[in-house]
Amino acid sequence: MASRRRARTFLVPELIAKKRDGQPLSEEEIAFLVTGFTAGAVMAEQMAAFAMAVLFRGMSPRETAALTLAMRDSGTVIRHRGLRQRAVDKHSTGGVGDKISLCLAPLVAACGVAVPMVSGRGLGHTGGTLDKLEAIPGFRTDGSVAAFRDQVRELGCALFGQTAEIAPADKRFYALRDVTGTVESIPLITASILSKKLAEGLDGLVLDVKVGSGAFMKTREDARALATSLVRTGRKAGVAVSALLTDMDAPLGHAIGNANETREAFAVLHGEGPADVRELMLALGVEMLRLGGERSRAQARRRLEAALSDGRALAKMEAIVAAQGGDPRVVGEPDRLAVAPKGVVVPAPRRGFVRRIESKELGLVAVAMGAGRTRSDQAVDPAVGITVHAKPGDAVAEGSALATLHVRSRRNTAALRDRVAGAFSIGARRPAPRPLVLEAIRR
Amino acid sequence: MASRRRARTFLVPELIAKKRDGQPLSEEEIAFLVTGFTAGAVMAEQMAAFAMAVLFRGMSPRETAALTLAMRDSGTVIRHRGLRQRAVDKHSTGGVGDKISLCLAPLVAACGVAVPMVSGRGLGHTGGTLDKLEAIPGFRTDGSVAAFRDQVRELGCALFGQTAEIAPADKRFYALRDVTGTVESIPLITASILSKKLAEGLDGLVLDVKVGSGAFMKTREDARALATSLVRTGRKAGVAVSALLTDMDAPLGHAIGNANETREAFAVLHGEGPADVRELMLALGVEMLRLGGERSRAQARRRLEAALSDGRALAKMEAIVAAQGGDPRVVGEPDRLAVAPKGVVVPAPRRGFVRRIESKELGLVAVAMGAGRTRSDQAVDPAVGITVHAKPGDAVAEGSALATLHVRSRRNTAALRDRVAGAFSIGARRPAPRPLVLEAIRR
Repeated sequence: MASRRRARTFLVPELIAKKRDGQPLSEEEIAFLVTGFTAGAVMAEQMAAFAMAVLFRGMSPRETAALTLAMRDSGTVIRHRGLRQRAVDKHSTGGVGDKISLCLAPLVAACGVAVPMVSGRGLGHTGGTLDKLEAIPGFRTDGSVAAFRDQVRELGCALFGQTAEIAPADKRFYALRDVTGTVESIPLITASILSKKLAEGLDGLVLDVKVGSGAFMKTREDARALATSLVRTGRKAGVAVSALLTDMDAPLGHAIGNANETREAFAVLHGEGPADVRELMLALGVEMLRLGGERSRAQARRRLEAALSDGRALAKMEAIVAAQGGDPRVVGEPDRLAVAPKGVVVPAPRRGFVRRIESKELGLVAVAMGAGRTRSDQAVDPAVGITVHAKPGDAVAEGSALATLHVRSRRNTAALRDRVAGAFSIGARRPAPRPLVLEAIRR
Repeated sequence: MASRRRARTFLVPELIAKKRDGQPLSEEEIAFLVTGFTAGAVMAEQMAAFAMAVLFRGMSPRETAALTLAMRDSGTVIRHRGLRQRAVDKHSTGGVGDKISLCLAPLVAACGVAVPMVSGRGLGHTGGTLDKLEAIPGFRTDGSVAAFRDQVRELGCALFGQTAEIAPADKRFYALRDVTGTVESIPLITASILSKKLAEGLDGLVLDVKVGSGAFMKTREDARALATSLVRTGRKAGVAVSALLTDMDAPLGHAIGNANETREAFAVLHGEGPADVRELMLALGVEMLRLGGERSRAQARRRLEAALSDGRALAKMEAIVAAQGGDPRVVGEPDRLAVAPKGVVVPAPRRGFVRRIESKELGLVAVAMGAGRTRSDQAVDPAVGITVHAKPGDAVAEGSALATLHVRSRRNTAALRDRVAGAFSIGARRPAPRPLVLEAIRR
């Protein structure tokens, strides 16, 4: 925690002015700001002015790494003593229908790489892994750091939520950035993502940087800049990082909504489920196994496919669910996860081909249905959601089902149905197929 | 106070992001921020991020005027009902030895232009008019707005301090800027100066924008930019403003320190005192009379000189001092103002000509002696100060007195003496004379 030696003192307004004027800050100066902010000695208004100055002036790789490490060190940094495997995690920058963690984590753990995964809840149009896991009756994500460490050692995987002990400076700083127009800064996003992940005690981290209308990064250039910053900063902080840029111009898979998505992730563990979910899981899995020590990409893929087909991935997930208090039967029988009883079909207004789907709009409709939240203190309904039947490239007839809304009551669903219909672009020509993985950034 | 009609509501992070992205804010949006900040609905961290965004993006004249008016309207705006004369004030951006207000205000009032002057205290190396006035035994500067208005109507002049009722948004915003590296923004400085002054109920305002080592604006370009912004914004806000750029590469006059400066200002009212103080007083007085309705600059100067030589200016100051509870005899007999008993002479280290004086360093020595403050809650000692004997262009012999420190005890004065000596540059050649008034900005 904090620095071990006697820290120097700086004048905060002078540090802010330095960044404002485009001069680099030293590692010691950055650590002073973060430590002071955590302790309450640096005021929120000072961190806000600093964040805005960073937004305009940027940060060097060295400064970004210093910020990351200072925020990581604001709380507990987990050490996996006695762990024989390498520990590798995956982080996604957030998309719609992204349930990859629920099948990827047990799959990679089944292949002998430890996955100590700390996840967040959904906010806004993107879902959160914790909410999806909590659709499993009894499943607990709020264990202690010690329990987390123990489970990683025993099962090779734990799927927990962020505790107050992990990177508290990041939590406060993010809340502040959220209300001061200072979210959109690549060094600040980098430090926020990595500080939490590095506190998990990782050897490697694979990033799924989403690109497109449903993602935080709308353009490939922005996504590439963020991925490059994450990879470079991770390396400076002593963790091997690789990143895949992946398409988020359409929802991932068919299921949106918590229980709905968890079902779909489990179907993929059964060797079923949508091709895009399976494909992205395997692509990210290959990256994770490589960071876990596997040299051959082809061999990594074969190992993943074997663990899927022989049931080891499924068994691993059952063990994880059981260890975290959930009913393990839901893994083998996903239909046990309750989805809301009423279905509202969204018909295609005309025949043609689905050209694109505004996945952000579908995410926002899911939030409006109760599957997500607009404020961090809201509860979610695990059972509601949307199933997308027609994806980009699919042919549809007039009146055929584009999607189904899963609701508890059909009352007041007309507007939601219209919004979902409006999110689909239908044209006369089949669109060119889009690759799912756009590029990899590893250096 | 605040807006009279029903105000629209905006999302604060979006307003910050707009400014961050270089889009102009509307008058309504700016008023919403300032009103919300005053009421506590807009958080300090949000105003800090906004200030930093303004520092990078600037503000249009229209935005600057909107910010000025919104801050003015955060508190009481004085109206001088039934006042026959025009009301004109002077504001200085702050220098060392600047006691002009103490002689200028009664002089201009004696010429029939009302001077409703609200002044501040010194902070850092620059002195404050309130501290100098309070060197007069019994003098009160903390009267109510009603007493201020009454005195302006009766005597044509009142010299008061800023009450909590005047532009409270500026007070809070300035305190926040001071700790967040966001002071150095011309639109924010403009709004801060003008919001307070416009709350005095003025028809005209003359600005003394100091340039040089002892001033906030170090270069003529910066000073010109600030003066232009002040003149333009004042006009947009409905007040005639003119500005003089004046030299602050040497202290003004000979006296530094509160009682010391007040004595010198009264000497000028007697037709005595240093030529530079008299000259600057007359130059600013001409500007004030012009904004008060006098068309001829030559005639304005004659009127000022007449009010000085026939004793009307002196009598006006006596009446003001008496009205505000002070001993009016100090105006006629400035030696009644106590200056600290011990004098420490600073000798010239060699013969030559004084080429320049680091006036900021003299101001800082005066603060160290107790004449000023480094925190706004400190008390000052009115009796301590520095008298400068040799000014730029003066010939000095080795060992002759450059300055005298007025102290209560000679203990621990060696370092101060050395610092003062070090502030004087002495060279073999007489420097070219420097003009006091560098330029005027009136359009």
